[in-house]
Order: sequence, then C-alpha cells, then structure tokens
Amino acid sequence: MVKQERAAHTRRALVRAAGEEFAHGGYKPVSLSRISKRAGVSYGGLHYHFAGKEDLARAVVAEAAAILRDEVCAATGSAPGDGGRGALARLVESTYRLVDRIDRDAVVRAGFTLTLAASSPDLGEDLCERWRCWVEEILAEAARAQELGAGIRGADVATAVVATTVGFEALSVRDPAWLKPDAVARFWRLILPGITSPETAAALHADRRPPRPRGTAVQRLTLSR
Amino acid sequence: MVKQERAAHTRRALVRAAGEEFAHGGYKPVSLSRISKRAGVSYGGLHYHFAGKEDLARAVVAEAAAILRDEVCAATGSAPGDGGRGALARLVESTYRLVDRIDRDAVVRAGFTLTLAASSPDLGEDLCERWRCWVEEILAEAARAQELGAGIRGADVATAVVATTVGFEALSVRDPAWLKPDAVARFWRLILPGITSPETAAALHADRRPPRPRGTAVQRLTLSR
Repeated sequence: MVKQERAAHTRRALVRAAGEEFAHGGYKPVSLSRISKRAGVSYGGLHYHFAGKEDLARAVVAEAAAILRDEVCAATGSAPGDGGRGALARLVESTYRLVDRIDRDAVVRAGFTLTLAASSPDLGEDLCERWRCWVEEILAEAARAQELGAGIRGADVATAVVATTVGFEALSVRDPAWLKPDAVARFWRLILPGITSPETAAALHADRRPPRPRGTAVQRLTLSR
Repeated sequence: MVKQERAAHTRRALVRAAGEEFAHGGYKPVSLSRISKRAGVSYGGLHYHFAGKEDLARAVVAEAAAILRDEVCAATGSAPGDGGRGALARLVESTYRLVDRIDRDAVVRAGFTLTLAASSPDLGEDLCERWRCWVEEILAEAARAQELGAGIRGADVATAVVATTVGFEALSVRDPAWLKPDAVARFWRLILPGITSPETAAALHADRRPPRPRGTAVQRLTLSR
C-alpha cells in the first residue's frame, strides 16, 4: 500500500512537472529529460509510468479536464442549501474560476496550451469543446428558467463566453493581466445588462458572498461602474 | 531593375512559404529547409534574404502587421465620400475583415500564431497589442461621437472585442468554423443592442452595402434573428 501511494505520488509529480514544462513551451520544444529533472524522478521512473511525451501530454490534458469538470463546471443544478442560485450566476462564477485556474494552475494552463497548439499530437480530449458544451448546457438551463431576456439566443452568449475566455488564455502569453479578475469583470459588466432582466442583473450585482471554497479563491463579480 | 524585381519576388515567396509553415506548426517545429522547398528557392537563396528562422518569423509578423494596418484597421476617420460611416460601423467591419484574413491568409494567420505561441523568439511586433490599440482608439472615437450608450465604457467593449477575435483564432486550430462570418455575426448580434442607441443599431442593421473591396470578400453584419 505504501508502495502504491509512492507510485501515485511519483505519477502526480510527473504530470505536474510536465504541465509546468508544456505551459511554458508548448508541446514540441519540451524534452522528457527536462520533465524528469523538474519532477525529481529518474528517467527510468518516468518510463515506468509513461510510454513517452505523447502519453504525458495526454495525462496532463486528462488531469486538466478532470479539474474543469469537478471544480469549474461542477455548479450545474442547484444543490440543496445552495440558496437556489440561478444558472447565469453559476456561469458567471465558473468563468472567474476557469480564468483563475488557468492563471494559477500550470496543469490547467498546459491543458489549454496543448489543446490550442497546432503542433500537439492527438490528446484524447478537447478541453475547449468540453468547456463550450458545458457553457451551452448551462445557458439552455438559464433559458428554461427564463433568466435570459426576450430574443436573446443562448448560442450567441455561448459564442461570446467561450471565445472570450479562450482569448484571455491566448492573450496572457504576451500579457498576464488578461488572466486577472478585472478582465472577466469588464466582460460581464458589458454583457449582463443586455442578456438578462434588471432583476437578475441586480441579483448578480448584490450577490457578493464569497464562493464556496474549491481550492482557489475567486473574486465576485461587481457590476458597479 | 529586373534583377531587383526578381529579388523582391523571391523575398515575397519566402515570406509566404514561411507563413504557411508557421501557420500550421508554430515556431519551433518548422525548419528552414521546409520553407526553402515550399518557396521553390534554394537554401543559398534563402540565406541571401534572411539570416535565419528568427529573421523569417519577424518578416512574417511585420508583413501581417502591415496587412492589419492597411487593410483591416485602415478605416479610421471618415474619408470623403465614405457616407460619414460611424466609428462603430467601421469597428464591426474591421472584425469581419480581420477574422476573414486570419481564415484565408496564411501570413496573417501565422502572424497571430507566432505572436500567441509561448515558444516564439522576439518578434519585434505584438500583433494583438496593435489590434487592441486600434480597437481602443476607434471606440474612443465612437464615444466622442456619442455612438455608445450612456454608461458604456469603451474599455469594456475593447476587452470583449479583442478577447473574442483572438479567441476565434485560437479556437480555429481545433475547429475552423470559429473563423466563419457566422461566429462574428453571433458576437455582434449579442453585443450591439446593449452598447449603442436603437438608431445606431438599426443603421448598422440596414447597412447592407458590400464593403469596399480590399483584397478579400467579407460578409456584412446582419442583426436579423
């Protein structure tokens, strides 16, 4: 059992080290020897867990997908005691969570970097597609709950939300300020008044409770100008 | 003179071939021999014009910046006979032009791919920053002309426009549909009614004239749902 735990620990260290390398350099320029050195794991130890670089890249993207699913997109369906928070409030919160995770977590950042790099191998997952599907789902929920204004199409909101969040990730390579909560707040301050009723926008405005902890702190949306 | 023309032709062929290679593979995996082969220029001919791969990457980005300046962002200040088109109309048109150029022109696409790749060398230009500055400038013009609704901040609109267009480019690596006019239309259909007066939105809606030709066709915005 202790041996199994040690193996799991080594595997996690390798995935994290690979994430840090891929997040900085993309797929092609990264070498296995740099990853094993960064993880403090021998080359043989790396090969015990992973067949090669492609295998490691897939593990990084799979780990990023798990974080996306469990910690960013978990907020579908109002849980009991959740105060009946609406779908739009959960969408807004998830964009803050996602951008914050990309900023702070090398594995999540590398997952997107690898997904968006033309030179990546087959990764088994498409993080952007997963994110898009979840955004469309929660917007459909918002539409059913009549949280969207008359004539507002969920698909249009989804296009803007997905393209903007992915754009923040891409732009942050040159300027990290694009991953700060301020950028997300500017986007929602522009979008929300146009897509929902004044009541819902006001409720989101008033909702200044800190989010339930999920590993990283996120800032609440403020609609004040 | 004929010799000079031939040299200029060879240089252009090399920049275009480099753009096609960089657009597909990013910076690191591309080799000079692939570029010279694609351009139909000898290795010696390539080295007559360019010191190496960094030099070629900078030439691609400089050419993309020139296209951005001359053909996408040219529409600042109403030219005489331009029918006094407003700043917002020119911003909308420029987003269609930009996304269309990224879709169809390997040099422009490579310019953004290189700008957004973590592994690129110093490129001398930051295309995203150039685009952001122009978008902020034309939105300031829209604000002065009172085309923006009360309380709408140009900086918020600029954030959404820049992040969305760059996001389209990034997402298109996995799904080329993100670079089609439909995606741009969904964005503006969502944004315009919230940021401008009904009159300006209606004017943009009615403005179905084809844009003045600038090398590539772009589709007009339609606000119909």
